[in-house]
Amino acid sequence: MNRYIALEGIDGAGKTSVSTALALLLEEAGHEVVRVREPGGTAVGEGLRKILLDGPPVTSWAEALMFAAARAQLVVEVIRPALDRGAWVLSDRSVYSSLAYQGAGRGLGMDRVRRINQPGLRGTWPDVVVLLSVSPAEGLARQARPDRIGAQGVPFLRAVAEGFARLADEEPGRFAVIDAGCPMEQVVAGAWDALGVPG
Amino acid sequence: MNRYIALEGIDGAGKTSVSTALALLLEEAGHEVVRVREPGGTAVGEGLRKILLDGPPVTSWAEALMFAAARAQLVVEVIRPALDRGAWVLSDRSVYSSLAYQGAGRGLGMDRVRRINQPGLRGTWPDVVVLLSVSPAEGLARQARPDRIGAQGVPFLRAVAEGFARLADEEPGRFAVIDAGCPMEQVVAGAWDALGVPG
Repeated sequence: MNRYIALEGIDGAGKTSVSTALALLLEEAGHEVVRVREPGGTAVGEGLRKILLDGPPVTSWAEALMFAAARAQLVVEVIRPALDRGAWVLSDRSVYSSLAYQGAGRGLGMDRVRRINQPGLRGTWPDVVVLLSVSPAEGLARQARPDRIGAQGVPFLRAVAEGFARLADEEPGRFAVIDAGCPMEQVVAGAWDALGVPG
Repeated sequence: MNRYIALEGIDGAGKTSVSTALALLLEEAGHEVVRVREPGGTAVGEGLRKILLDGPPVTSWAEALMFAAARAQLVVEVIRPALDRGAWVLSDRSVYSSLAYQGAGRGLGMDRVRRINQPGLRGTWPDVVVLLSVSPAEGLARQARPDRIGAQGVPFLRAVAEGFARLADEEPGRFAVIDAGCPMEQVVAGAWDALGVPG
């Protein structure tokens, strides 16, 4: 069963709206849904989120390690227990954001970032990654108030988007790439198909 | 030149007192001294320190990753620049505390904890580790108010002390093990010898 679903894409791709629509559809189908966001979703993670998104400048590796820490906490405290009792987990971002943003965007290397995340995840990787694809310029235009990382500008976001595309190529079985420029009903319908909800 | 010095040992071993004495001796000998503590020493690191030592319960891997993040920030922001301009760095704890506390104490494995720390350190490992050796019971008795990690009790601290001892065995060239039960003058004299200050 594929029940751990990650919504991915650069800032402004529409992850939150799509996640809200999917949650409603899943609940209508009678499923328990747990929604989380990264970084965050736990007391520790929200503390880290505050430092990461609004705090003083963070060096690249410290940033990557803090995202990994917030994620390790989220897996143990929220995601694993939810999956174990049969709920669906809809996550706004996941380890794949770290690979794309810190690995590709910051240039730390996707494999090296994967390695620092591996032990804390204890095997809990998203079953399905819904990648909402949007151009960096379009993504930036859609953001009301970019945070520290979202405000890095087009060249950075282009590297991130290329990182996501590379990951989707490497793991076609896990990724569903959806053109986020389409009308919302169409985007949601595509994402819903990717979930493979039984019944 | 060995100028990056880490004071190590379980809580209550007397690291801060010995570091203060060494700083005075180095300054008397005409050297610039930069003192840091882990976690902390930067705005990001102090934010992490607050979550780690006084915050909500943190899972083992999140803890290890947060220590590694604080350290990555400290290396780039403080330690590397200090060493590059010729200063001595006296650090209250270092990556070896993570290996002993999270690797051995929490049971994550010293090698696995080493691997998540490696990239962020960018090759900046302590040149000399002064390991102040004290029994867990004695260490606990010396603490005024143990923090969340220091308050884990004797079996945990025994595993940490064994971790430190194993590291000292593996890297005899880097470690100076000093019996912290000796009178302070003797401890400081032993630590001073280990620094190998020229002149």
